[in-house]
Amino acid sequence: MDYHRGIRKGFPEVIFCPGKTKEEILTIMQKLATEYPNILATRANEEIYELVKSSLPDARYHPEARAIFLEREPREKKGKIALVSAGTSDLPIAEEAALTAEIAGSKVERIFDVGIAGLHRLLPYLPKLWEANVIIAVAGMEGALPGLLAGLVNRPIIAVPTSTGYGANLRGITPLLTMLNSCSPGVAVVNIDNGFGAGFLAHMINQLAEGVR
Amino acid sequence: MDYHRGIRKGFPEVIFCPGKTKEEILTIMQKLATEYPNILATRANEEIYELVKSSLPDARYHPEARAIFLEREPREKKGKIALVSAGTSDLPIAEEAALTAEIAGSKVERIFDVGIAGLHRLLPYLPKLWEANVIIAVAGMEGALPGLLAGLVNRPIIAVPTSTGYGANLRGITPLLTMLNSCSPGVAVVNIDNGFGAGFLAHMINQLAEGVR
Amino acid sequence: MDYHRGIRKGFPEVIFCPGKTKEEILTIMQKLATEYPNILATRANEEIYELVKSSLPDARYHPEARAIFLEREPREKKGKIALVSAGTSDLPIAEEAALTAEIAGSKVERIFDVGIAGLHRLLPYLPKLWEANVIIAVAGMEGALPGLLAGLVNRPIIAVPTSTGYGANLRGITPLLTMLNSCSPGVAVVNIDNGFGAGFLAHMINQLAEGVR
Amino acid sequence: MDYHRGIRKGFPEVIFCPGKTKEEILTIMQKLATEYPNILATRANEEIYELVKSSLPDARYHPEARAIFLEREPREKKGKIALVSAGTSDLPIAEEAALTAEIAGSKVERIFDVGIAGLHRLLPYLPKLWEANVIIAVAGMEGALPGLLAGLVNRPIIAVPTSTGYGANLRGITPLLTMLNSCSPGVAVVNIDNGFGAGFLAHMINQLAEGVR
Amino acid sequence: MDYHRGIRKGFPEVIFCPGKTKEEILTIMQKLATEYPNILATRANEEIYELVKSSLPDARYHPEARAIFLEREPREKKGKIALVSAGTSDLPIAEEAALTAEIAGSKVERIFDVGIAGLHRLLPYLPKLWEANVIIAVAGMEGALPGLLAGLVNRPIIAVPTSTGYGANLRGITPLLTMLNSCSPGVAVVNIDNGFGAGFLAHMINQLAEGVR
Amino acid sequence: MDYHRGIRKGFPEVIFCPGKTKEEILTIMQKLATEYPNILATRANEEIYELVKSSLPDARYHPEARAIFLEREPREKKGKIALVSAGTSDLPIAEEAALTAEIAGSKVERIFDVGIAGLHRLLPYLPKLWEANVIIAVAGMEGALPGLLAGLVNRPIIAVPTSTGYGANLRGITPLLTMLNSCSPGVAVVNIDNGFGAGFLAHMINQLAEGVR
Amino acid sequence: MDYHRGIRKGFPEVIFCPGKTKEEILTIMQKLATEYPNILATRANEEIYELVKSSLPDARYHPEARAIFLEREPREKKGKIALVSAGTSDLPIAEEAALTAEIAGSKVERIFDVGIAGLHRLLPYLPKLWEANVIIAVAGMEGALPGLLAGLVNRPIIAVPTSTGYGANLRGITPLLTMLNSCSPGVAVVNIDNGFGAGFLAHMINQLAEGVR
Amino acid sequence: MDYHRGIRKGFPEVIFCPGKTKEEILTIMQKLATEYPNILATRANEEIYELVKSSLPDARYHPEARAIFLEREPREKKGKIALVSAGTSDLPIAEEAALTAEIAGSKVERIFDVGIAGLHRLLPYLPKLWEANVIIAVAGMEGALPGLLAGLVNRPIIAVPTSTGYGANLRGITPLLTMLNSCSPGVAVVNIDNGFGAGFLAHMINQLAEGVR
Repeated sequence: MDYHRGIRKGFPEVIFCPGKTKEEILTIMQKLATEYPNILATRANEEIYELVKSSLPDARYHPEARAIFLEREPREKKGKIALVSAGTSDLPIAEEAALTAEIAGSKVERIFDVGIAGLHRLLPYLPKLWEANVIIAVAGMEGALPGLLAGLVNRPIIAVPTSTGYGANLRGITPLLTMLNSCSPGVAVVNIDNGFGAGFLAHMINQLAEGVR
Repeated sequence: MDYHRGIRKGFPEVIFCPGKTKEEILTIMQKLATEYPNILATRANEEIYELVKSSLPDARYHPEARAIFLEREPREKKGKIALVSAGTSDLPIAEEAALTAEIAGSKVERIFDVGIAGLHRLLPYLPKLWEANVIIAVAGMEGALPGLLAGLVNRPIIAVPTSTGYGANLRGITPLLTMLNSCSPGVAVVNIDNGFGAGFLAHMINQLAEGVR
Repeated sequence: MDYHRGIRKGFPEVIFCPGKTKEEILTIMQKLATEYPNILATRANEEIYELVKSSLPDARYHPEARAIFLEREPREKKGKIALVSAGTSDLPIAEEAALTAEIAGSKVERIFDVGIAGLHRLLPYLPKLWEANVIIAVAGMEGALPGLLAGLVNRPIIAVPTSTGYGANLRGITPLLTMLNSCSPGVAVVNIDNGFGAGFLAHMINQLAEGVR
Repeated sequence: MDYHRGIRKGFPEVIFCPGKTKEEILTIMQKLATEYPNILATRANEEIYELVKSSLPDARYHPEARAIFLEREPREKKGKIALVSAGTSDLPIAEEAALTAEIAGSKVERIFDVGIAGLHRLLPYLPKLWEANVIIAVAGMEGALPGLLAGLVNRPIIAVPTSTGYGANLRGITPLLTMLNSCSPGVAVVNIDNGFGAGFLAHMINQLAEGVR
Repeated sequence: MDYHRGIRKGFPEVIFCPGKTKEEILTIMQKLATEYPNILATRANEEIYELVKSSLPDARYHPEARAIFLEREPREKKGKIALVSAGTSDLPIAEEAALTAEIAGSKVERIFDVGIAGLHRLLPYLPKLWEANVIIAVAGMEGALPGLLAGLVNRPIIAVPTSTGYGANLRGITPLLTMLNSCSPGVAVVNIDNGFGAGFLAHMINQLAEGVR
Repeated sequence: MDYHRGIRKGFPEVIFCPGKTKEEILTIMQKLATEYPNILATRANEEIYELVKSSLPDARYHPEARAIFLEREPREKKGKIALVSAGTSDLPIAEEAALTAEIAGSKVERIFDVGIAGLHRLLPYLPKLWEANVIIAVAGMEGALPGLLAGLVNRPIIAVPTSTGYGANLRGITPLLTMLNSCSPGVAVVNIDNGFGAGFLAHMINQLAEGVR
Repeated sequence: MDYHRGIRKGFPEVIFCPGKTKEEILTIMQKLATEYPNILATRANEEIYELVKSSLPDARYHPEARAIFLEREPREKKGKIALVSAGTSDLPIAEEAALTAEIAGSKVERIFDVGIAGLHRLLPYLPKLWEANVIIAVAGMEGALPGLLAGLVNRPIIAVPTSTGYGANLRGITPLLTMLNSCSPGVAVVNIDNGFGAGFLAHMINQLAEGVR
Repeated sequence: MDYHRGIRKGFPEVIFCPGKTKEEILTIMQKLATEYPNILATRANEEIYELVKSSLPDARYHPEARAIFLEREPREKKGKIALVSAGTSDLPIAEEAALTAEIAGSKVERIFDVGIAGLHRLLPYLPKLWEANVIIAVAGMEGALPGLLAGLVNRPIIAVPTSTGYGANLRGITPLLTMLNSCSPGVAVVNIDNGFGAGFLAHMINQLAEGVR
């Protein structure tokens, strides 16, 4: 068995843009595009997209997720991932997670603008959360949302701390620590601002729940 | 005006025991007892109490709060402070806060064993919380309780992080950071495990609300 | 009882601007303005204000507090909050706290340019501090001002560490730690540079002291 | 729907022992035993067990996992969780994870004594890892094992950093950071030494993969 | 010129005890005693002293400073160092500083039990502080004393942070940071609990002021 | 006695520029210039100087020290401070220290481009170091210079860590820690990049050594 | 023996550019060029190079290594250093290491684009790694590459953490800690992004292996 | 080629004792002793040794290095490693490094009780240092010794920070950071207190210099 082929079966190839010039990104995308139908480039800006589009005209740009993607063989969106986030500033990370999971073939239900400070807005969504296979919870500031959800819903929760906040937020270290110390079990954490990682892992779990391994 | 006399008007004298020998603590208590009717010695153990009692037989010991106190002129308990805490391990800090406020002359309502992980146990207490002038919220682990309360009750919240937890809890640094980053305003924070400081400040606010300055 | 309505009773709606585009801020303000008479947008710059003003001409800008506000139903300023700060660089945070409390309906007495380094300037203000219901103390650098005040005045002190300083100041972590370790009780701390949070909490306490809950 | 009942459906009740006296632990276990058939008390020592056994004679002790458990209604072990760990010192955490998942009803395959330093011992286990629904990877020291596995196997990986190590290991902070920064996606992290949390979450995912929600 | 001989001219030889067995300490002291008249062994306990005394009967023990010393050629105590400290728990560090400076030949004036929390106790000592050549200020908790003194007295201040405190005190890191960020110039800082270093440096400055280099 | 007047006797008034607008700086300088002959504004750039000069034509700018100063009554330069520094990047901090001490009335001997990496360049300066009353040692990177000097010269050493370096230098935290842990006594430390504080304190000690208090 | 001359025998003179103006860099290079044939200026940009070239026309620029160098007496490239790195973003640091070692006289074999996430790409290079005298391993993100190599190859490994990454990468602190905690012995670590230091040390070891001291 | 066999060619098998029971250690040693002639167990105490000796009577104990070792096929000691250390408290780590290298087959020259504070004791050893192939420098406190040596000797330096010190030493983090920031190239660092790792790596380099790969 060729393990390497296997581990990315069906998942799009991914490029993490920061630290690369736009020319390097284009070169990598062109090369991948000869082999793979679906490609995702995260943390990209419009300027990079302009260059990429000139060479790969079917590439698209998702401005909120700050991602360029090529989706020549769209996959059927299956199962259900609930994506919960609190504030406007967390949207780019949340959308990066959503786009990642969707391109990979998962259905994503966005539940935005709910947070620990507005419990009355969150509670009505509980039935929807129980319908999902897995939950992604994105939160900055104090980062208490995933732990709160873990006490309300019996599903795996992928927690994404964001660098939204100031002062003692320490660029996301505070919500990261909060999430790691959750009183309720059922929460696991990815790196600060790592929407892609959360989307990838949630898709894996969603697939398993839909009977695909 | 003699400001120094004024600032402790009515409040018991206080001794912080760690770093002092039991003989030193006894000497300080004996000296204070000649001048002040009410004295509080925090973070004391039974061994210290045995020594103190032999010389000051009306001294009492509160084992959960780990405090020795002399209350020769008990003050009427006025107003209302709600004291909320989550876990068994946070009890010593919560009781230290309660005892401090009670000796100083505040009525304290204890609401224990409620936390972010058990929202269904917390919510029924909301009417009681709205009746209080001020809330003390004691929490270790992820420390999300004060921020949650701030979104539910319109009262000043004194947050006390505790060193309850392990690993990335960092001996209370995590709940401290969580509380400082609360999304909901209305929360202020005292030092880790500082039950005394929270009780003192809550009493001050409770007094103001009862018309005493 | 509708808790959510209750918790913001009389307090203006608040927008925290960083991490939002000026268009997003305008949209939120326009929406809130149809429902609430008083709105506060903190950490705003003049450029945002120019856009907001074009649509909401009665919005005003407070350049020192870096805040846009709409005050269509000004509330009577009651009670007294003393606002103490040391250096010129702490003024934006101090003014943010003042404006927040004033819009909410508290009288604020500013005592600026006093600090631990100039005790002879601070001491003459003691009578004024004793007249207040609650004190906000804003300090960067070493952050010793709130602890000093707590030994001189018998009032609740809301301490606001600022990121003013350099080197081992660690962007406000040092004054934050100093304030949390205050020897004198009566001090509680909000996040670094969180003038809004301090103003909000001080207003709550001031209201209680004036008999409003 | 009674969400609270639902979220622990089938999962044993759990007690975290540190910070509680053995008498408190016994009292909690006795009370829970009247209502629930399966109970797990983690981070317990033999001394606690001796006391518990005197009152609950069918309680058992797992010395490696340092856990007391009552399993009056054993659940069928379904699906497959692969549990990978490197060193002898990580065994208590690994066994805590295993016991947690097994009591909850998951089959666990232990793959011990493999690590990044001994690639030749790890590689032969790849087929077994591909058979699992989900992987728990326990590692101290540098904590590179989960990231290595994520490049070899297409399954969700729950990474558990342990406090095994010294010096710049910083009591587990180093493997925690390593795991959060994994180059390969598919990894999420729980708190340092949190074997229970990893076992709980892995069981949740394993259940989903077996068609149970 | 033999620089090495010169740099310790007149100063006693010093042994830092932690990390050495009592036998090692005795051996070092015996060897030094054949060459030097005055020897200081810091952070020693009574047990070490018992052993040392059996071989060097004129060695003495200072229990508060936790130091063993041999002073066969006592030096005249000249000039004046003011030693200011706040709490009972800081006494061992303060006495270590005092003993160090006294054996080296400086006069030390102890001003204990004054601190930022009790300004009314500190202010009467100002004339005495102005009479000194140099000030040592020892403080734990928030560590604000040296900065306060620097605004009141025109003398070099050697600040010694102590590990007295708890929680966010971080074993002395907080007062260390506070002292480094002092608004008033004239303060320099030594390591946490380094009474010896402060006494040594203050003696150097005191000597210079008395015309000795 | 008027302590406040006394504490700055003869020392120029000082303005720390960062966090102030150039207009604010001008206003403060103009106001101080009506009362004091000598003024120092640190961390200033040429743009601020252009504005200041237009109103105070006798103000001068020291580009390496990045300081504006007014010296209408120059003081005689007395005694001797040795100022030692290693690299080109530490020069601004070193020159800030020198200018501060010189305006205050101390003679400063600069010994630049010597460091722990070039012992052969440092050793020839030892006689000059022994002639000084006090030494300022400025160092970034590993910050070992002050500790090395303390083993070679019997004089008080004011150590100034600088933020020169990268990576694990942590913006000056590393040399700060190194200096605080110096094996040789006689070293005290000021804040990172605090050339002004070092110059001020060294001048105080130099004055004492010259018989001025 | 003149130790100073000896310690740089044959090695080019080196200038670290950050913190110096381009004029200062030129002056230093001109001065060194009168005495030494080979000079290396690291962390330089094209703008600096343009200025240097105008005066030293045989200076060359290596854009990937971001280095200016003068190589008037090229040394024979001997022995073999294997240089392994994972991602595109680590290339500048890797090339800085390579250039440093090459100018000094070592042969360098570059093995790029291999990492812990792509074991199948790394393993085919093992024979080449065994042929080298010493290995430089450059890695950002989780920094696990050097520890992995140490379990596969019996050669000294110089590990270079890079600041490539985000969030909990902490600007390179995470890979630094990972490398220091390597389970496999044989690894030593240089500062974050210190390609020059790694190249220098690897050359030293390579020389020793080739019989040169 | 069997890489795994190759990487430990000639090196004794090693057991790190902390975190293992004495029974586990004995079992591992017994098993290894059937296959390998030379075994090293580090961080062992006398109690472990007593047990081991009862079963493996030719096992020996090195009390300063705190190591048990079996050396049934002693290897010829070749080449030269210079081992430099400063204080008495660093001896256990230094001896652990020495023993490791000696069992592996390197000659080790110990140069103890020299440090940055006593330059006059260090300088006479320079000729001996130049004779070595590689240097191990062990230092606690400020950790400046390796950087000082790198400016004096042209040899690879393996730096070992120790946890000797107090306060701002941060259990060895300070010397670790100092060593990583060394101004002089030629230094690489291993984990705090990792004498074994330093001895292993130095032996590797010494072997290469003696023509063995």
